Amino acid sequence: MVPTDDLEPGPRPRRHRLSRRAFLGAVGGLTAGAGALIGFDRAPHRNATFEGPVLDAVEPFYGARQGGITTPTQSHTSFAALDVTTDHRRDLAHLLASWTSIAAKLTAGNTAGAMTADASATEPDSGEAVDLGAARLTVNFGFGPTLFTLDGVDRFGLAAQQPMQLTVLPAFPGDQLAASTGGGDLTVHACADDPQVAFHAVRQLVRAAAGVATLRWSQGGFNEAPASAGTPRNLLGFKDGTTNPATDDQLSSFVWVGAEGPAWMTGGTYLVVRRIRIDLGRWDGISLGAQEQTIGRHKASGAPLGKSAEFDALDLHATDASGRPVIPADAHVRLASPQENWGQMMLRRGYAYSNGVVATGMDGLPADHALDAGLLFAAYQRAPRFAFIPIFRTLAASDRLATFTAHTASAIAAIPPGPPRPGRWVGQQLLEA
Amino acid sequence: MVPTDDLEPGPRPRRHRLSRRAFLGAVGGLTAGAGALIGFDRAPHRNATFEGPVLDAVEPFYGARQGGITTPTQSHTSFAALDVTTDHRRDLAHLLASWTSIAAKLTAGNTAGAMTADASATEPDSGEAVDLGAARLTVNFGFGPTLFTLDGVDRFGLAAQQPMQLTVLPAFPGDQLAASTGGGDLTVHACADDPQVAFHAVRQLVRAAAGVATLRWSQGGFNEAPASAGTPRNLLGFKDGTTNPATDDQLSSFVWVGAEGPAWMTGGTYLVVRRIRIDLGRWDGISLGAQEQTIGRHKASGAPLGKSAEFDALDLHATDASGRPVIPADAHVRLASPQENWGQMMLRRGYAYSNGVVATGMDGLPADHALDAGLLFAAYQRAPRFAFIPIFRTLAASDRLATFTAHTASAIAAIPPGPPRPGRWVGQQLLEA
Repeated sequence: MVPTDDLEPGPRPRRHRLSRRAFLGAVGGLTAGAGALIGFDRAPHRNATFEGPVLDAVEPFYGARQGGITTPTQSHTSFAALDVTTDHRRDLAHLLASWTSIAAKLTAGNTAGAMTADASATEPDSGEAVDLGAARLTVNFGFGPTLFTLDGVDRFGLAAQQPMQLTVLPAFPGDQLAASTGGGDLTVHACADDPQVAFHAVRQLVRAAAGVATLRWSQGGFNEAPASAGTPRNLLGFKDGTTNPATDDQLSSFVWVGAEGPAWMTGGTYLVVRRIRIDLGRWDGISLGAQEQTIGRHKASGAPLGKSAEFDALDLHATDASGRPVIPADAHVRLASPQENWGQMMLRRGYAYSNGVVATGMDGLPADHALDAGLLFAAYQRAPRFAFIPIFRTLAASDRLATFTAHTASAIAAIPPGPPRPGRWVGQQLLEA
Repeated sequence: MVPTDDLEPGPRPRRHRLSRRAFLGAVGGLTAGAGALIGFDRAPHRNATFEGPVLDAVEPFYGARQGGITTPTQSHTSFAALDVTTDHRRDLAHLLASWTSIAAKLTAGNTAGAMTADASATEPDSGEAVDLGAARLTVNFGFGPTLFTLDGVDRFGLAAQQPMQLTVLPAFPGDQLAASTGGGDLTVHACADDPQVAFHAVRQLVRAAAGVATLRWSQGGFNEAPASAGTPRNLLGFKDGTTNPATDDQLSSFVWVGAEGPAWMTGGTYLVVRRIRIDLGRWDGISLGAQEQTIGRHKASGAPLGKSAEFDALDLHATDASGRPVIPADAHVRLASPQENWGQMMLRRGYAYSNGVVATGMDGLPADHALDAGLLFAAYQRAPRFAFIPIFRTLAASDRLATFTAHTASAIAAIPPGPPRPGRWVGQQLLEA
């Protein structure tokens, strides 16, 4: 049997889903599709009340932008930061070309490579997303500041190309970063409407980096599934993302890199990721009023305190009958607002995370069992030196919410523009400069 | 404004979903529904390619069985094991009655309690599942062996009621359990088609246990979303669950407790949960043939080695031309098969899990960064002493797959029958005996 090229059109398997179909086309000596159908026929207990359609929608991969930035939020994410282990720029370029090719396949709903029935060969794909649809998978790649300069060394002849905005994040008050959970030379950010599709994508890409880069830290996250019709709620129970930039003007001003360059970043953006553990037990123990004063919004509606609807404008000057500010001075929404931050906005794509129970408290010291759960914060922005860094410096020092949180992992990356068409790869303009 | 009772029928919010609607009905001084609609109208960037329907399907809560056992597999799970801290049986009974009441609300798509706009009150529900549908949420509760007897002490006068089948799991070769990740006096197993709904349920129930029980360990998991039409694949890339008991005869024989009693367990079952870390890097590095020899099945089709379709019978006597067994002597599927285990079957509801990257190797010792990912194994069975315990003793000692895995958390519990109707609660027959 001839192995099927997984990029060739072929018959769609059951349920008319786009699928990682090369796998099914290459089973030694039998018709895999028939096997799958038999499985379906004989497993009546599964899907008796099957909910939802097959997740076969595809997000475009090639284009002016990388995916997963303005893409409507998917319900799952998987993020990885990697360390480059090679000393050779050509290895790095080869990895980026390879990653681009693999990501193009995965986002189309295919496997990472054409799978064969050769039992002596190592599989090019681990297989757990076979039969699953593309599920709107997006993947983007980024370059951390340490890729350009590490301990003063210009590792790959790229130091002159390092953007002014791409700086190692400073230490913030309350950070609980381990050496291993801060930074990363490369980032991979996958989002999909199926958790297994998102996990699978990062797994294949980390694997493809063998010999060139190794995993530094990784974290998955979830959101409402399918993403609800409104602003989703985070684990604080509050709507999160209400003031995201949305108009083309806002995206141009605050998300996409413009003429400021460097040239290889024009049309790109910057990503900051922070894993923010939340002391859910303590949070749940305070009153509704105390929660709303901490955030500065009403919990149910998402409206700013004193207003009635989620998208009502934030009035930071409003005072109550006794002359006190309606939005407290240390409320999260005030300190993070564009009004208090030179008009800056960030495009946040937050996901909840839960890593089960750990035996450390919020201060990082041994304590009773507590959930390691919270927010996997991810924000795309044009200028981290003017947006995330100063805003978060304020928040870490003064935000009432910060008393409930600890930042336990962190990364910053330059996200170059998308590969415009097949044959081009992410970061090519930088690495071939 | 009068707080709305969250069990009362009310207008459905946007998108005609069943919803945790009490929250929206009780916002101080404004029409929350209108706020939500404004949010929807003004957030065009969300859901431009919204996939899937609102997840508003409801699984029954009251009935002869607890939920989440034979319920068609949902795409997400959240499991928790708790330690009872009270010395008083009445507190335990009160907790079970309270848990039953809360689970009935949550599985119907409501909040854990009626939410008010009283800013001075602590919220009865943390709120992150407001606006979300029931998403086929199921919750079941279980009793660990240490609830009956702990260090020889009959803690609650229940020792005489401890089922013979409910025994502390023995130590198995290769176990890497921390003291804190083995066991638990009580278990909560939630499954839903929305990860936030599953997480939310366990969070509310742990919170409701305050003063009576505390969290011991917890783990979430994911599966294909929505569950695919066939047997799902685990992170090994293989179909998992092919030989699950499915017919009424099989379920009666191998899942549901019968006349053997004790009486309070008739119609119940037993749950064994194991968090099984998989060395994905090493697994991905071996050949397809080596993977298939390890499992004993073809990866693509799920068929037993030498057969062509997933549900073909496992022939453990088949030999190849040179007289060697087609299914190797140490293949997982052989050692776990009913044929090799006195006909025993377990109803497995496995989920993948990923907790990000840890700095420990598969042996539990410090090592390079590696994914803490694998399988959250959960199996319902009539008789753990005849099923999980002897089967896994064999697997731990001899299964070729065991060289790729480490068990890092564990629990066993008696799952009593369901509360037959409102007003009755889980475990009532035991605790009021």
